Amino acid sequence: MALIVQKYGGTSVGTPERIMNVARRVAKWKARGHQLVVVVSAMSGETNRLIGLAKEIQASPDPRELDVMLSTGEQVTIGLLAMALKELGIQARSYTGAQVKILTDSTFTKARILSIDDEALRADLDNDMVVIVAGFQGVDADGNLTTLGRGGSDTTGVALAAALKADECQIYTDVDGVYTTDPRIVPEARRLDTITFEEMLEMASLGSKVLQIRSVEFAGKYKVKLRVLSSLEDLDKEESPGTLITFEESPMEQPVISGIAFNRDEAKLTVLGVPDRPGIAYQILGPIAEANIDVDMIIQNVGHDGSTDFSFTVNRGEYAKALAILENVKEHIGARAITGDNKICKVSAVGVGMRSHPGIASKMFRTLAEEGINIQMISTSEIKISVVVDEKYLELAVRVLHKAFDLDKATA
Amino acid sequence: MALIVQKYGGTSVGTPERIMNVARRVAKWKARGHQLVVVVSAMSGETNRLIGLAKEIQASPDPRELDVMLSTGEQVTIGLLAMALKELGIQARSYTGAQVKILTDSTFTKARILSIDDEALRADLDNDMVVIVAGFQGVDADGNLTTLGRGGSDTTGVALAAALKADECQIYTDVDGVYTTDPRIVPEARRLDTITFEEMLEMASLGSKVLQIRSVEFAGKYKVKLRVLSSLEDLDKEESPGTLITFEESPMEQPVISGIAFNRDEAKLTVLGVPDRPGIAYQILGPIAEANIDVDMIIQNVGHDGSTDFSFTVNRGEYAKALAILENVKEHIGARAITGDNKICKVSAVGVGMRSHPGIASKMFRTLAEEGINIQMISTSEIKISVVVDEKYLELAVRVLHKAFDLDKATA
Repeated sequence: MALIVQKYGGTSVGTPERIMNVARRVAKWKARGHQLVVVVSAMSGETNRLIGLAKEIQASPDPRELDVMLSTGEQVTIGLLAMALKELGIQARSYTGAQVKILTDSTFTKARILSIDDEALRADLDNDMVVIVAGFQGVDADGNLTTLGRGGSDTTGVALAAALKADECQIYTDVDGVYTTDPRIVPEARRLDTITFEEMLEMASLGSKVLQIRSVEFAGKYKVKLRVLSSLEDLDKEESPGTLITFEESPMEQPVISGIAFNRDEAKLTVLGVPDRPGIAYQILGPIAEANIDVDMIIQNVGHDGSTDFSFTVNRGEYAKALAILENVKEHIGARAITGDNKICKVSAVGVGMRSHPGIASKMFRTLAEEGINIQMISTSEIKISVVVDEKYLELAVRVLHKAFDLDKATA
Repeated sequence: MALIVQKYGGTSVGTPERIMNVARRVAKWKARGHQLVVVVSAMSGETNRLIGLAKEIQASPDPRELDVMLSTGEQVTIGLLAMALKELGIQARSYTGAQVKILTDSTFTKARILSIDDEALRADLDNDMVVIVAGFQGVDADGNLTTLGRGGSDTTGVALAAALKADECQIYTDVDGVYTTDPRIVPEARRLDTITFEEMLEMASLGSKVLQIRSVEFAGKYKVKLRVLSSLEDLDKEESPGTLITFEESPMEQPVISGIAFNRDEAKLTVLGVPDRPGIAYQILGPIAEANIDVDMIIQNVGHDGSTDFSFTVNRGEYAKALAILENVKEHIGARAITGDNKICKVSAVGVGMRSHPGIASKMFRTLAEEGINIQMISTSEIKISVVVDEKYLELAVRVLHKAFDLDKATA
């Protein structure tokens, strides 16, 4: 008997019929003798519907009140799933984040989980019940409702798995695992049986979108065994094992590159001719951070003649806001000019194997050069190489890199 | 400066635009220097949408889980209204029933309020904030979410007014007060400036539908000054005073009859030839009550030959269920037969004045007889006379009674 936390996303619970299917899948695992905690998202489209209502009232909805509204999406799903399980004759009880209670800080719309009270859940599990928990939400110390940000249901799942010391946290999505790249761009893309946490972190943050990055960090921190599975597979068939996210590297079998990730929704900003002196990076990025804009790549090359250029990328949706902020501080920091481009994308090769294999970067750059793709920015980490290129080259770049690193061929 | 509780129903908050209008109305009262607590319902149609979703999963949705779902309707509205007030530059904070906390018993879908914690609300009011509370919902001692049943938002409003010792509880609806009868049936129907609590109780329970009966009982018990107003009136015009519900009777000016109420959704059941012995009423109605079916009129005439007939009315939606229950107990109670009719309606004349005016009943019966309307059942109280007639006579009966009691003529 294992204790399993399962998380089902918005598509998996998008209609009452699909919710019945989720209940059947849960019932199948329950019938094998496992204890089950099920985390669900809002029905697909519901969160956007609620945001749409809010924006009819306020262009920038009040964050506290937005969380009050948004947390209703998951609350509807938990009720429906509990009903569906009862309809199958299975004991179940739903919990909102506040009922659990999942204590968070008070950063509305982007709250962080501080602690989870597992007492009531454990009692229910011991009474042979399936426990259903609303993802994406919590409650702060003052009793205000909070949400964890988009994709926060994954985080709820992993955090519950950590708190309950679950044997496995299964993330059900509309894909059956993590692929070497997006199969819609490269039909030869293959499902990975395993992927390391570090690779997964790089894949997620780079736009593979299977898992929310924060949930992967969380899983790594608390050593939660995380598995990505498909909720759309035929219930009567033997299920695919999905992709297991592992802590350990097995260098013997490790391919050099595990996958090609990409992110379409990027924009770059460059501050030209800033004085090359200590504190300048903070002066530029401080106001950006205060405006709650997430910065992705940051690049500053060596300066000359006492000045340098400073570039960074942000989500495309925050481009205009970031640009306005820079124009505001331009004089204060003594910059010559601000430039930007919101028609760029980022393509990355990810793999723990590159640590022990030199020459990956040059192979990547050569491959892109052979196709005439100009590289605008480069950023590297231990296990990934990212390049920023013109948006129009995205598909081409992903395809040629996937082939160049033999990702279309099965590993031994 | 007064402390005013305002309650806005589903139609009044049916769209973001209407919610902005509610905010403007609240702002108008706030600008006069009053403290305001605003109770809102779910946006019109939302509760039915949620029930529809639930019924796609379970024909009889699990009551606990249904309440988890249904309470989201009001939760969305409080968030939107708080945003709307902030958009107008007014400080506001929303509260769910659980956040307040409005403690109820654990009768899911029909919970009763046990107590209200007013501490947080008072602190907010003292800080010049408008407090917004989700109607219709509460939380039981174990932290389960509960709802108060249809129309429960009125009860929330009155209960909050009682707990906060508010100067007035204003119930905003889509009509501008209580009328002598439904103006859609009798165009000459007039708005009453005042109506006594007792009359209001009879009017509400008989289907006038302006206020939920439980909220009127509550208001009577805690001496809450209750006023029915229209939320659809032009904000720039002088508002209509609506109808004030009073405790005191002013017999000098009291008309004999205040209004003609009616209820379309009735069904009657008769148990024929039951033994005329003690305990028989309980044997018949016990199982009905256990099935949570509300019984309205109950009639048992004197028996003869040791047996009697026993009739009662229920909501039409519960007719089939009630009939099945009676068929089940028929043999046990020794009844000869069960009959029923779900094509009936109830029409009532209501007025505290009838206490001091004999002959009201006979006038009512004569008026109906002159139109050839057969009376199937009669039930009377101190201040009302109700008759059950064939459904097809409803409009005719209401019209002739409204005229017979001079309700189309203004009082002095």
